[in-house]
Amino acid sequence: MSKPLILVTNDDGMFAPGIKALVSVASEFGEVVVIAPDSPQSGQGHAITLTSPIRLNKVDVFEGIDAYECSGTPVDCVKLAKSVILKDRKVDLCVSGINHGSNASINIIYSGTMSAAMEASLEGIPSIGFSYLDYSFEADFSGPRHFARQIIDYALNKKLGDAQLLNVNIPALPLADIKGIKVCKQAEGTWTEDFVESKDPRGESYYWMTGEFILESKETDTDIWALNNGYVSVVPSMHDLTHHTALASVKGLENSN
Amino acid sequence: MSKPLILVTNDDGMFAPGIKALVSVASEFGEVVVIAPDSPQSGQGHAITLTSPIRLNKVDVFEGIDAYECSGTPVDCVKLAKSVILKDRKVDLCVSGINHGSNASINIIYSGTMSAAMEASLEGIPSIGFSYLDYSFEADFSGPRHFARQIIDYALNKKLGDAQLLNVNIPALPLADIKGIKVCKQAEGTWTEDFVESKDPRGESYYWMTGEFILESKETDTDIWALNNGYVSVVPSMHDLTHHTALASVKGLENSN
Repeated sequence: MSKPLILVTNDDGMFAPGIKALVSVASEFGEVVVIAPDSPQSGQGHAITLTSPIRLNKVDVFEGIDAYECSGTPVDCVKLAKSVILKDRKVDLCVSGINHGSNASINIIYSGTMSAAMEASLEGIPSIGFSYLDYSFEADFSGPRHFARQIIDYALNKKLGDAQLLNVNIPALPLADIKGIKVCKQAEGTWTEDFVESKDPRGESYYWMTGEFILESKETDTDIWALNNGYVSVVPSMHDLTHHTALASVKGLENSN
Repeated sequence: MSKPLILVTNDDGMFAPGIKALVSVASEFGEVVVIAPDSPQSGQGHAITLTSPIRLNKVDVFEGIDAYECSGTPVDCVKLAKSVILKDRKVDLCVSGINHGSNASINIIYSGTMSAAMEASLEGIPSIGFSYLDYSFEADFSGPRHFARQIIDYALNKKLGDAQLLNVNIPALPLADIKGIKVCKQAEGTWTEDFVESKDPRGESYYWMTGEFILESKETDTDIWALNNGYVSVVPSMHDLTHHTALASVKGLENSN
């Protein structure tokens, strides 16, 4: 059997410790190809580049591994990997991250890391986004490395079933203190923004976004609960945004006038 | 009873015919406040601006209506409306669009128009994104205006129930030829990209994204089916990306090692 082909991407760029850890773990399992944005793309969500050209350059960052930098968004990276760099090759798995910061709960929709992973799953590639709840570039990656290894192994052994996209978050704890993995659902939560208003040197106003996460779910089967209780959270995710149980609520529109 | 407060936004900017039509229809129902990006933001998905300042300027575009331009993404626009422009006021409805081009099927996740609407619904504001399958800025907006009026009326009469976010697409047909409204689910489909490679004047390569939509759903209860058969499609949408039926598939991860 030939070695699996694993695509590695992220939203923090090629020099983030998170992608280095992920490339190292993925390389234990198969042939790795890396494509990452050439500038940090946090909060880019599912943005794509339609109205300007995209640059793609081969770079020598990881020894013995093909790596490319792209001027576009994380989703652009995955599209270029699929259609240009790895055209005509079957990609067995896409892993995105390891993000510096949480992508649990509603963060998934703002996240470049998870949007890249979702794009790969849309293209038919089983895909996993990894995020670590430690923002520091000096962080200890032994926990994230351990669980990335375990979950990649699970995925490559074709155990994902219908779950073709996983949102994995790892608590900011030493490996020994992490209790294990919880498979859970996305917690309900939202961000309350507070825009800091300031003046530039020319006296013109500008705003800078800041905010606070408000947890709404009280249940114990959510990603936020798992993380707050020392577990790695794994949420099988997908791209169907239909609110199926609300279809009946608006059926009356068909007869309105 | 005081007049409802309606927030209007889009991703094409303040000078698109679509937002002009929507402002005009919304004004029939209540007080309208407009905030739109100061440059086209198609394909921006749920991107937010975290690493740079955001500019916000009051502009005089629509007679007698407060309007603001923002240097950020469509989602930034909604966050600024909620936290700065309309702070301490209750917004009764957010309408986004009318987008020039389809946001049916998987387009919803790439769409700035729909991401703005989704952001409003996350903030607790009932919200509707409108898209018209005619890209031309010369397009006849009588169909979109008619159905926007009908659906806004329905929403303001508190008939949405659990459906706090609607993805509305209007076929590119004369009003008289549109058969009515279908409440439906998001069709399965994907984009196959083809990147056009070219050289800039300095001889450096660049890529420009193009693509083709591939419909996967065969059912007759989807938005694409409705549009192809002369109906306006209305999909109640939401932000929970959990793949609930796949939770069991990966439960084994909890005991893997």
